[in-house]
Amino acid sequence: MILFRGFEPLDVFGPLEALQTLSLWFHLELTLISENSTDPVSTAPILASMNRQNSSFFQTIVPTATHDTAPKDLEVLIIPGGAGSRSPYLNSTLDYIRDSYPNLNYLLTVCTGSLIAGRSGILDGKRATTNKLAFLSVQSAVPNVKWQSHARWVVDGNIWTSSGVSAGIDMTLEFIECWYGKKIATNVTNFIEYERHTDPRWDPFADIVGLPDPNESLVVQHR
Amino acid sequence: MILFRGFEPLDVFGPLEALQTLSLWFHLELTLISENSTDPVSTAPILASMNRQNSSFFQTIVPTATHDTAPKDLEVLIIPGGAGSRSPYLNSTLDYIRDSYPNLNYLLTVCTGSLIAGRSGILDGKRATTNKLAFLSVQSAVPNVKWQSHARWVVDGNIWTSSGVSAGIDMTLEFIECWYGKKIATNVTNFIEYERHTDPRWDPFADIVGLPDPNESLVVQHR
Repeated sequence: MILFRGFEPLDVFGPLEALQTLSLWFHLELTLISENSTDPVSTAPILASMNRQNSSFFQTIVPTATHDTAPKDLEVLIIPGGAGSRSPYLNSTLDYIRDSYPNLNYLLTVCTGSLIAGRSGILDGKRATTNKLAFLSVQSAVPNVKWQSHARWVVDGNIWTSSGVSAGIDMTLEFIECWYGKKIATNVTNFIEYERHTDPRWDPFADIVGLPDPNESLVVQHR
Repeated sequence: MILFRGFEPLDVFGPLEALQTLSLWFHLELTLISENSTDPVSTAPILASMNRQNSSFFQTIVPTATHDTAPKDLEVLIIPGGAGSRSPYLNSTLDYIRDSYPNLNYLLTVCTGSLIAGRSGILDGKRATTNKLAFLSVQSAVPNVKWQSHARWVVDGNIWTSSGVSAGIDMTLEFIECWYGKKIATNVTNFIEYERHTDPRWDPFADIVGLPDPNESLVVQHR
């Protein structure tokens, strides 16, 4: 799991809750990867202008490795989103993702984690989704990606991208089902008392935000 | 937010995701309260027997205060659950909860956080709920509480208790709605792309676990 200043808490801890539960039944190893030190990483945005109420409500978690010390044989890399995904200081993280991707089995992103993956270039030409409130700005920031507006998650090759925040839980449960089977995924889901969405096309938030439905536009073209 | 060794990640970060989002619109302050130091607190269970696969999948987060240094004028205290809720080494935390409760506006528990609140004695005679897989053992450990088997969350006076893990998100959104109104709660819900349950009686997990339905038993008595 990649960490950076201003990550979104549930983008990290939704998937990790599901995977930590799985780790009680199957051996799993987690590395929390920060840029160049293992100093705690805060959910606080870098810019004070993103915390207009001057709240002190942020959390810090402890990385277990840096880009240099993380294992070279990672199987799965997960990239969370959050306000920090727009940071101009992510160059080292973008390099790390670009360099790591060819050796990964899978890359997963949650929320605007797909903005980070997109900025690294590895999503070019691929289908992907992202946070729906941020959809248009992400699309405009990384135009070489086939962004899917109505999707809880999207799979293109070995890259899984989810919609905003909570969608990372549904994507992770589906990922678990792919590798450990339906019974285990159901057990994890029930353990965390979560109402899971198994249809990747379920996405009321795209409509709530007012994103154009690609199917509707097809109908218009047909007429 | 209370922290202790072996807390459940989503019990903490589900509610905090909703509240951190709210903190972008309203001034909020968070204190992460550990027992007697601000050393990072791990989600790892104390007992190796609770990690049978020898997984290294745990996360550590950084407290911002101890029982002694936490603000004395806390408005809301949240207690998460997790394997650590059964620890025999929670006496200081139980004392802290017992001593703090009279000065709080509200106390919220997530999952087996209600076991901790129950062990402190403050739930005696009150209605409460807890994690459904743990329901019978919690009921037996703290018998002086009116445990509700079929409930996403329960409110009794100024104490709100939720069912397992993800249920803490629904309870927190309802708590936000009570104080900030329906529009703000809906905005937070959409921001985190969460499908919210607004009915506290919604609880398929009680049936999945096979807990007896109190309404059914009433019908049987009637016959």
